[in-house]
Amino acid sequence: MFKINENYLKLPGSYLFSAIAKKVAAYEKANPDRQVIRLGIGDVTLPIAPAIVEAIHKAADEMGHAETFHGYAPDLGYAFLRETIVEKDYKSWGCHVEADEIFVSDGAKSDCGNIQEIFSEDSRIAVCDPVYPVYVDSNVMAGRTGSYDPATGVWSNVIYMPCTARNHFVPALPEETPDLIYLCVPNNPTGTTLTRGQLKVWVDYANRIGAVILYDAAYEAYISEEDVPHSIFEIQGARTCAIEFRSFSKKAGFTGVRLGFTVVPKDLKCGDVTLHSLWARRHGTKFNGAPYIEQRAGEAVYSEEGSRQVMEQVAYYKRNARVIYDGLKEAGYTVFGGINSPYIWLKVEDGMDSWEFFDYLLEQANVVGTPGSGFGPSGQGYFRLTAFGTYENTVEAVKRIKALRQ
Amino acid sequence: MFKINENYLKLPGSYLFSAIAKKVAAYEKANPDRQVIRLGIGDVTLPIAPAIVEAIHKAADEMGHAETFHGYAPDLGYAFLRETIVEKDYKSWGCHVEADEIFVSDGAKSDCGNIQEIFSEDSRIAVCDPVYPVYVDSNVMAGRTGSYDPATGVWSNVIYMPCTARNHFVPALPEETPDLIYLCVPNNPTGTTLTRGQLKVWVDYANRIGAVILYDAAYEAYISEEDVPHSIFEIQGARTCAIEFRSFSKKAGFTGVRLGFTVVPKDLKCGDVTLHSLWARRHGTKFNGAPYIEQRAGEAVYSEEGSRQVMEQVAYYKRNARVIYDGLKEAGYTVFGGINSPYIWLKVEDGMDSWEFFDYLLEQANVVGTPGSGFGPSGQGYFRLTAFGTYENTVEAVKRIKALRQ
Repeated sequence: MFKINENYLKLPGSYLFSAIAKKVAAYEKANPDRQVIRLGIGDVTLPIAPAIVEAIHKAADEMGHAETFHGYAPDLGYAFLRETIVEKDYKSWGCHVEADEIFVSDGAKSDCGNIQEIFSEDSRIAVCDPVYPVYVDSNVMAGRTGSYDPATGVWSNVIYMPCTARNHFVPALPEETPDLIYLCVPNNPTGTTLTRGQLKVWVDYANRIGAVILYDAAYEAYISEEDVPHSIFEIQGARTCAIEFRSFSKKAGFTGVRLGFTVVPKDLKCGDVTLHSLWARRHGTKFNGAPYIEQRAGEAVYSEEGSRQVMEQVAYYKRNARVIYDGLKEAGYTVFGGINSPYIWLKVEDGMDSWEFFDYLLEQANVVGTPGSGFGPSGQGYFRLTAFGTYENTVEAVKRIKALRQ
Repeated sequence: MFKINENYLKLPGSYLFSAIAKKVAAYEKANPDRQVIRLGIGDVTLPIAPAIVEAIHKAADEMGHAETFHGYAPDLGYAFLRETIVEKDYKSWGCHVEADEIFVSDGAKSDCGNIQEIFSEDSRIAVCDPVYPVYVDSNVMAGRTGSYDPATGVWSNVIYMPCTARNHFVPALPEETPDLIYLCVPNNPTGTTLTRGQLKVWVDYANRIGAVILYDAAYEAYISEEDVPHSIFEIQGARTCAIEFRSFSKKAGFTGVRLGFTVVPKDLKCGDVTLHSLWARRHGTKFNGAPYIEQRAGEAVYSEEGSRQVMEQVAYYKRNARVIYDGLKEAGYTVFGGINSPYIWLKVEDGMDSWEFFDYLLEQANVVGTPGSGFGPSGQGYFRLTAFGTYENTVEAVKRIKALRQ
C-alpha cells in the first residue's frame, strides 16, 4: 500500500492567505452591505503598464507566425532577458553577476520553495522571525523542521532569529550554527530592512561558518534609502555564500503575469560541486521554462518607457505606504516599515493577539490585514497592512481605523 | 558547513535533451554548410492558432486596465478554464471529474516532476521502460532509486516494466510490488498505447495492491483509434487509484506558452488523507498559479474556432508521422508508434547502439533524432523520431534516411 509524505500532515492549519480568504469570504457573505477593503494579501491593484502590455501584444503576434514562433525556452531563460537584467540592475549597482548565473522562472515563490531541494536533508535552517511562511513551510514538507508546538508556533528544529521592536528588527547572529539562512530584505512582513553594514555582518558570518544565505529581494524596488543595498551581491564576499531571489510581482505588478529569477553565482560551492550546477539540474528536470511572452514582458520592464512607468507605479504604492504609516501614527499606533517597503507593521491593540486584532479590524472597520502571528512566533502582537490597494481605498481604510480610536 | 543533496550527484550525465543539443551544436559549428533537420526533441513548429493569439491579445488588454486586471490567480486555476476542461474533455469522454479536482499549472513536466513529493520517501516506483526521463530523474533527486549501474543504465531500486517489440509494447504487471506506477499513454518515446481493456488491467491491479497510477496523458490529442482511452478516468475504478497529467504543449503548440493541468480525484486516499489535499497544499505553498493570460489561452483551445484550428495542427503533425512511418518501413526499418502518437520508434541498424545510430544519422543524413537508450535500458537499440517538424523538412529527412539504405 502506498504511503504519503507524512511531513505534510505536520503543517498546522492551511496556508496563511487561504485562511484569511476564507474568513473574509464568510464575513462578506454574512454582511453583504459592508464595503470590505483588502490590505491583507500582498496583491497589487494597478494594471500592467502600457509599455509592457505592448510588449505582450508583440510577443503574442510573434507566437502566431511560424517564422517568429518560440517553442521550449532555453533552460536558464532567454538571453535577451538575462542580459538585460545584468546590464540594467546588477551593473548599475556595481555587482558582479554573469548572465548565465541567472535562472528565469515563473516567480520567486516557486524558487524560494524549491531551492531547499538541492541541500542535504539534515540541513539546519535559520529564519528571521517573523517572515514569509514559504521558507519554513517548504522545509516542513521536506522533513527538516522537527516537531511543531501549537502553543508557541515554534518548530523544534528551526533556528529562529527574532526581529522585533526590541532589536529594531535587525536579527542577531544565532547561537546555534545554521546551514541555510533565509533573509528577506526588505523584509516581508515587517517592512524593515538592513543597511550595507548590517548585511556585511551576515555575509562574513556565512562565509566563516560555511552557510548559504538564501536572500529574498522581492521588494528591492521599494528601497528609498541610500545605505540599503538592492542586492546582496553589492556586499563583498556574497558570491561565495549567497543565492538571490528576485521578483517582478511587486515592481511591475506581475502577480498574475508570473515571472521571477534566481541568481546562483558560480563561486558558490560545496567542495567541488557548484550549487549552480545543481540548480541547473533541477531547473532542467522539473521545470520547462517561463513563457516566452512573459519573458518579453519582463524585458519591457527595463525599457526606457517601461522602467519609467513601473517606477511611477512603485511611487504610487509608496505614497499609500506613507498614508498608512502617518495615519496610524496619528491614531496612536506604534508603526514600523513602509519606508523601503510596501508593508507597514504595527503593534496591535493592548490585550489582543494578532488574530483577535484581525477580527476586530475586519468587523469594526471592515479592513483586512494580515495577522503578524501568521509569519512566525515573534509576529504575535503585530499586524501587517500593505500599500497595494488603490489610493482611495487606502485613505478610506486609514480613516476608518482612526475613527475606531476616537 | 552546509551540505548538498547528494542524490543529485547520482544522476548520470546531463539531461538527455541538453546532451543532444550540445552534440548538435558542436556538429553544426564544425559543419556550417550542412542543413541539419531536427526531429529529436519533441518541440512543435507550427505557430499558435489565430483564435488563441486573439485570446492572448484580449487578456493582455484586460491586464492593462484596472477594472479588468488580474493579480494572483486562485490556487487551483481559474474556474473558467477548469470548468471548460470538465465540460469539453471529461464529460464528452464520459468521465466523472469535478472542476475542483483540476489543478492548473505551468505544464505537465513540472507536475510530473513534483508529484513524487507528496509520497513517502521509501515509496517504490515502477516505470515503463523506455519512458520519458523525468519520472525516474525526479525520484533519483528524492533518493528513492538506489544505486545506478552505468553499464546497464539500471537503478537498483526502480521496478522496470520493459516495453519492447517482444511484448508489443504492453507492459506486464511487475513481479515486485510498486507503490507508484508511472504510465505514459500514448507512450513517450515508443508512440505505442494501451486499449481500454489493457488499461483496465492496470487500474484493477493498482486498486488491488494499493498503488497509485501516475498517468501522463500529454499526447492524448493524437489518439486515432476507437478503443484507446483519452483519459484513465474512462476506466472504472480509476478514481481511487489514479492521478492524471495533461498538457497543452502538443495539442495546441504550447511548448513556449506553458500550460498544463493535473487531475487528483477526491476519492484517492491514504487512510483518511486525500491526495487532493496534499497536492493542494503543495500547489499553494510552492507555486503561485499559471499566468492569467495563459489560462485564457488555454480556454481558447476549447472554443469552437480554437478547437478546430488546433485539431488541424494535430492533423498536420499526424500526416508527418505517417510520412516517417511509411518512409522508414519502405526503407526496410522496423517501425512502431505513429498512429496514436506524434512519435515514431524504430529499431536501429544492426550492430549499432542507440547513440551510435544518433551519430550516424546526424553525420550521414544530418537528421537529429533521440537515442532510445536515453529513455531507459530497454530503449537500447531503438531510436525516436518526432512528427513535430515542418512537412517539408519531414519529407526531406525521410528522403535522406532512405537514401542511406540505397
